[in-house]
Amino acid sequence: MKVGVIGLGLIGGSLALDLRALGHWVWGISRRERTCHTALDRGIIDAYYQLGESLPQDTDVVIICTPIEQIIPSLSLLVKYLSTQTIVTDVGSVKAPIVEAGQQLWHRFIGSHPMAGNTNSGIESVQKGLFTDRPCAVVPHPVGQINDQISALWRSVGMEVYYCDSTEHDRAVAWISHLPVIVSASLNLACNRESSARVKILGEKLASSGFADTSRVGGGNPQLGRMMAQLNRVALLSALDHYQEVLSSLRQTIEDEAWEQLEDRLKQAQEVRQTYIKSGMIAPK
Amino acid sequence: MKVGVIGLGLIGGSLALDLRALGHWVWGISRRERTCHTALDRGIIDAYYQLGESLPQDTDVVIICTPIEQIIPSLSLLVKYLSTQTIVTDVGSVKAPIVEAGQQLWHRFIGSHPMAGNTNSGIESVQKGLFTDRPCAVVPHPVGQINDQISALWRSVGMEVYYCDSTEHDRAVAWISHLPVIVSASLNLACNRESSARVKILGEKLASSGFADTSRVGGGNPQLGRMMAQLNRVALLSALDHYQEVLSSLRQTIEDEAWEQLEDRLKQAQEVRQTYIKSGMIAPK
Repeated sequence: MKVGVIGLGLIGGSLALDLRALGHWVWGISRRERTCHTALDRGIIDAYYQLGESLPQDTDVVIICTPIEQIIPSLSLLVKYLSTQTIVTDVGSVKAPIVEAGQQLWHRFIGSHPMAGNTNSGIESVQKGLFTDRPCAVVPHPVGQINDQISALWRSVGMEVYYCDSTEHDRAVAWISHLPVIVSASLNLACNRESSARVKILGEKLASSGFADTSRVGGGNPQLGRMMAQLNRVALLSALDHYQEVLSSLRQTIEDEAWEQLEDRLKQAQEVRQTYIKSGMIAPK
Repeated sequence: MKVGVIGLGLIGGSLALDLRALGHWVWGISRRERTCHTALDRGIIDAYYQLGESLPQDTDVVIICTPIEQIIPSLSLLVKYLSTQTIVTDVGSVKAPIVEAGQQLWHRFIGSHPMAGNTNSGIESVQKGLFTDRPCAVVPHPVGQINDQISALWRSVGMEVYYCDSTEHDRAVAWISHLPVIVSASLNLACNRESSARVKILGEKLASSGFADTSRVGGGNPQLGRMMAQLNRVALLSALDHYQEVLSSLRQTIEDEAWEQLEDRLKQAQEVRQTYIKSGMIAPK
């Protein structure tokens, strides 16, 4: 296949690398020319082009791996240079607004969301096998062959594909991805409210893996967090409402010294998490 | 030195192992006789005894490593068998109530809180070097020589010692340890409220390292979570009040679509977390 990758960061670069290793011819586009040079030098891509200029004809699939707010703008710059048979997909973490706008711009646009990555970013952090054994959501296109081809592509780099409609996807990721960002960011911000400098410093010194883990996603890329909230606002607000209710009720059991009840609720929390570990692809730690 | 370790779980067993490796003679006590046998067989301890029976005279230090609710009951069963010079310390994650009760029972009781461990428990999970480069809080005793001896003990297994009064300690751990448990447990419980079975399953399938990390401490031992809340109720409630305010204000920025403001707040959250990583002993991830 001939494959184009727009955006050569951790996701795009790692995907290009794996696809080339599978024998595909892979071209890339990056805003920064230096990134293109690096990608070429390191054997991540076979060639590079620029957005808004002509592209290799007969490209089978283009995968847009830019930051989420640039997906639709990139697609709109691409479309007039695409062959009519080219399938375009993306890797954005919100699907409803992107699939809607994407399919208006391009009849063979299909939404994907590979759940892979780590806290690194950029071409320097590219790694082989980033997608192995990770889940990928795909929002089915009306044309079955497009679904087959895109699913085969994700499976070829080791992913497990889950079909879902874009609203279901966005509700699911509101719970497991966007709500955790707000919950975790609030933890960081709340800790900063301690009025005693001594206690604050002591907290910093004593903070351990529990704090590190719980605070991690809330200390991530602020722009990404903002875009997630902006593009998935309704589902996130609904998740937050539930969260606030649950938190208030837990707080009340502590206020009321209802210790048996608190222990029961913590037992439920433990069971819920076990369900995620058993059903999903997250590893127990 | 002659050292006694009460409770041969992950913390007690690992500590006994390191202390023996340093040349100390270490006796142990566990509720389960089988644990005592295992500890002896594996070279974790030199001998074992029972609570409420006579103990080796001239023991220099006894470290109580039981679950937190058994620290004071264990101490009360120990005291009449201790030599007057024996120092007793503990490893409980709350200090004010334990130090107060402990010093009433034993004039040479000093509170410690080594921040070490992982999600495993029991004698089977014992490991060498568990305490290396980890912080340990010590609540200073009026007798300076007791502080010196206990600090030297924690430092000998690789820990960095921080002196603090018990109230400061409990406020600090409310932020960095007990608040995260409630925040994270609420995340698990809230996710379980999704009404669509399809969306729930999809969430389970797509849940990734971000969810895994944020939900981890809230899926931990329910009894431990309960005891932390019970013993550190006032500081935890205060931390929760701040947390709820911060969370509500973040939710409001999303409701109001105040995206610049949200991004600013997320930037602050990122900076706060950086402070923890730079000042403390948690590794960047």
